[in-house]
Amino acid sequence: MEMRDNNDTIVAVASGVGGAIAIIRVSGDKAIEICDSVTRCRSHKRLADAKGYTLHYADIVDESGRIVDDVIISLFRNPVSYTGEDMVEFSCHASSYIQKEILNILVNNGARVALAGEFTIRAFLAGKLDLSQAEAIADMIASTDKASHAVASNQMRGGYSSDFIDLRSKLVELISLIELELDFSEEDVEFVDRGALLNILEQIIFKVDTLKSTFSLGNALKDGIAVAIVGSPNAGKSTLLNAILKDDRAMVSDIAGTTRDVIEESLTLNDVRYRFLDTAGIRSTDDKLEQMGIQRTFSSIEKAQVVILMIDSVECISVESPQGYVNSLIDALDLDSDKEVILVFNKLDSLAKIEVEAMKLLETTFSTNGYSVVSMSAKQGVGIDLLRDILIDLVDTSKLYTGCTIVSNARHYDALNSAFKSLEIAKQSLINNISSDLLSQDLREVLHNLGLITGDITTDDILGSIFSKFCIGK
Amino acid sequence: MEMRDNNDTIVAVASGVGGAIAIIRVSGDKAIEICDSVTRCRSHKRLADAKGYTLHYADIVDESGRIVDDVIISLFRNPVSYTGEDMVEFSCHASSYIQKEILNILVNNGARVALAGEFTIRAFLAGKLDLSQAEAIADMIASTDKASHAVASNQMRGGYSSDFIDLRSKLVELISLIELELDFSEEDVEFVDRGALLNILEQIIFKVDTLKSTFSLGNALKDGIAVAIVGSPNAGKSTLLNAILKDDRAMVSDIAGTTRDVIEESLTLNDVRYRFLDTAGIRSTDDKLEQMGIQRTFSSIEKAQVVILMIDSVECISVESPQGYVNSLIDALDLDSDKEVILVFNKLDSLAKIEVEAMKLLETTFSTNGYSVVSMSAKQGVGIDLLRDILIDLVDTSKLYTGCTIVSNARHYDALNSAFKSLEIAKQSLINNISSDLLSQDLREVLHNLGLITGDITTDDILGSIFSKFCIGK
Repeated sequence: MEMRDNNDTIVAVASGVGGAIAIIRVSGDKAIEICDSVTRCRSHKRLADAKGYTLHYADIVDESGRIVDDVIISLFRNPVSYTGEDMVEFSCHASSYIQKEILNILVNNGARVALAGEFTIRAFLAGKLDLSQAEAIADMIASTDKASHAVASNQMRGGYSSDFIDLRSKLVELISLIELELDFSEEDVEFVDRGALLNILEQIIFKVDTLKSTFSLGNALKDGIAVAIVGSPNAGKSTLLNAILKDDRAMVSDIAGTTRDVIEESLTLNDVRYRFLDTAGIRSTDDKLEQMGIQRTFSSIEKAQVVILMIDSVECISVESPQGYVNSLIDALDLDSDKEVILVFNKLDSLAKIEVEAMKLLETTFSTNGYSVVSMSAKQGVGIDLLRDILIDLVDTSKLYTGCTIVSNARHYDALNSAFKSLEIAKQSLINNISSDLLSQDLREVLHNLGLITGDITTDDILGSIFSKFCIGK
Repeated sequence: MEMRDNNDTIVAVASGVGGAIAIIRVSGDKAIEICDSVTRCRSHKRLADAKGYTLHYADIVDESGRIVDDVIISLFRNPVSYTGEDMVEFSCHASSYIQKEILNILVNNGARVALAGEFTIRAFLAGKLDLSQAEAIADMIASTDKASHAVASNQMRGGYSSDFIDLRSKLVELISLIELELDFSEEDVEFVDRGALLNILEQIIFKVDTLKSTFSLGNALKDGIAVAIVGSPNAGKSTLLNAILKDDRAMVSDIAGTTRDVIEESLTLNDVRYRFLDTAGIRSTDDKLEQMGIQRTFSSIEKAQVVILMIDSVECISVESPQGYVNSLIDALDLDSDKEVILVFNKLDSLAKIEVEAMKLLETTFSTNGYSVVSMSAKQGVGIDLLRDILIDLVDTSKLYTGCTIVSNARHYDALNSAFKSLEIAKQSLINNISSDLLSQDLREVLHNLGLITGDITTDDILGSIFSKFCIGK
């Protein structure tokens, strides 16, 4: 972000590719002056004389006097704009040529092409939003379903600032009082009631802990819940994928047979996006290519929040110890304890009646052992609804639509973890009744970590890495 | 266009795919009412109470009270808007989910999703622009270079209306006077000076003829100038394409060898887009596939305004009659007289010095016969600049930037041709001094044909076919 100069007037196309109308944004001290010099308002007014929050119909004219386009101009005046600066937005015809020409004309008249996220950096620097809100804007733009939208939306509206603002200001007050004690250290006075301080710390700890606990949900919702469909070859994994999608995704099963790559398809259930990963069947093999495919299956399992283990009931019932067979399949997956596992006993349709009864007993055993179990004929669509319900129940979306902050950003999670650690240390120091000067250091560490989340403490490096992920024009 | 109901309030996304900001337009009698019911302005104002040409910061809220997005609203009031109706435009975050939700909310509250071009149809029906101007808007949005932009831009600003408006109103006046004569037919009076009428007709004929003559340029500029590169196999066609593009378009020459399909690449020279068609080499062959490829070469020649005939100098110089050899190559192309032909003598680098001299003589011969001739080594880039200059000189862009109307639309060209014919008939009738009633019929035919261009005369079928080519949201 070396090139960023916040005094420049910046310009960028903010709308997407194609369409009928494109939006070109200009922001900065000279936005109005530059735009006045390249436009002729049909009303013969100058933007410089117009009020903010008004629209103007104008022609954009190049150096030679050629009209490049007729546009609608939106005028925003400092500080009541997205960036807090003077802003002009052109709504022009969405020709690639016209957009390029308008950018050229503005640059020739003193504007600079904006870097990714630079409009939002300025909004942040102007105090229009805190850092977590700024980051949420990028998530908002990328949201593809109701749940990821809600996560971003809550964060954008409230940000973490509202979660911390009261507690943080109380903490700042207490720190300054404790630091005041230092000046009177020889008199051994206490300006701060240690009990009240402990109470504040515990409130912050509770808040931080609550937020931390939302991360696995938030992270999953942001990118969708990854569901790996695994099992032996021919257990019916691709058939299940097609059945869940209820949509004959062309050739999914065929491709799964011809390639060893993981097939990924998304489906939104109850507002949440699930990303199903159809994988290569697991078995011992000497085939190099098949081994590579199986390696990719295990990578998928690692990435997944949910693992659906497809079991071929016909094969299961034919072995000496069906329970041992299933256990060995589960063991082979080498699962972390945080994965949700769903056992699917497939090919119900191929079993004799007596076999079905036997399988029912087996299913009950695993169900009692705490597994989610589905009896299924993927081919005939039996059991699919139950599987969907189980998947839906795995995600508690109750917090989503009540405005709670859900942490979905790894940077915030890291900062919350650091804050949590420093809070625990400060709390311990307080309980151990350590001296004011050391305690104040601990508390300053807490403040610092909280500040990293809201952006009260930032460096140009942090800003650079956050905003480089933005699209140009925002 | 059966479904079109001009009383509905319509809604559509007008911006492209991706980006940071999207535009959703609403137009119709109920636009403001509907938008008021789904938004909460931060100023607590209602749009119904706000003036046109103002901006408003607002939240969009669904039935359940959930905030879907915060948006900037542009408010336009009938008749000062694009469509002439009340219009509201939302500038929202460009998430696909958010756009879909906002459309849903608006539709649930009484709007209808717009058909392609429906906003512009309304603008036309409201008399905001004539039909040729409306059509030019689609061309404007599609423009990719300065020349096609200028063609669309001239047409959009002026339209044909300005070309015809005076002449047409004079003609209307004269017709009504001639028709008045019919009422007095027994008295054999003439209200109209036949000389003045002839003068008006000739002015219109001149105008129509001038416009007609711009069509080949306008059509070429709109879609780009098609340049077919043809010749024997291995004459260096693909090497030339790469050399002209000055850009190692990946594998162009390789692909040309492996496929028989025509390879098309565009390049803008002096503001005009040239579409180069690299074709299969022409020769007699029994190979079915090769025959098909050669057939496609001839289709390319037919479509092209310019044909570059690549001649292998090494082969040319080795035959008994080089001149006959080149003539036979030219004859084999079976060219219409309206094609521009450029003879390129390639592989200059493979000739001995004495051979180069011999080729020079041959080139002079063809040059004297009126052909554009280039001596070239495509491999070494020799002669490429000369070829570019020849291509640039083929297009007279002098009229482009002086605001002249350039006809680029086949529908207009047809209408101009019809008008021209009826004008010639009317002129002949006048000269032959035929009776007022027949003359008035001829003149009404002229009026009708002129009306087809400007849209003073339209049918729903014509509107349907014109506007279905528009993008949604315009």
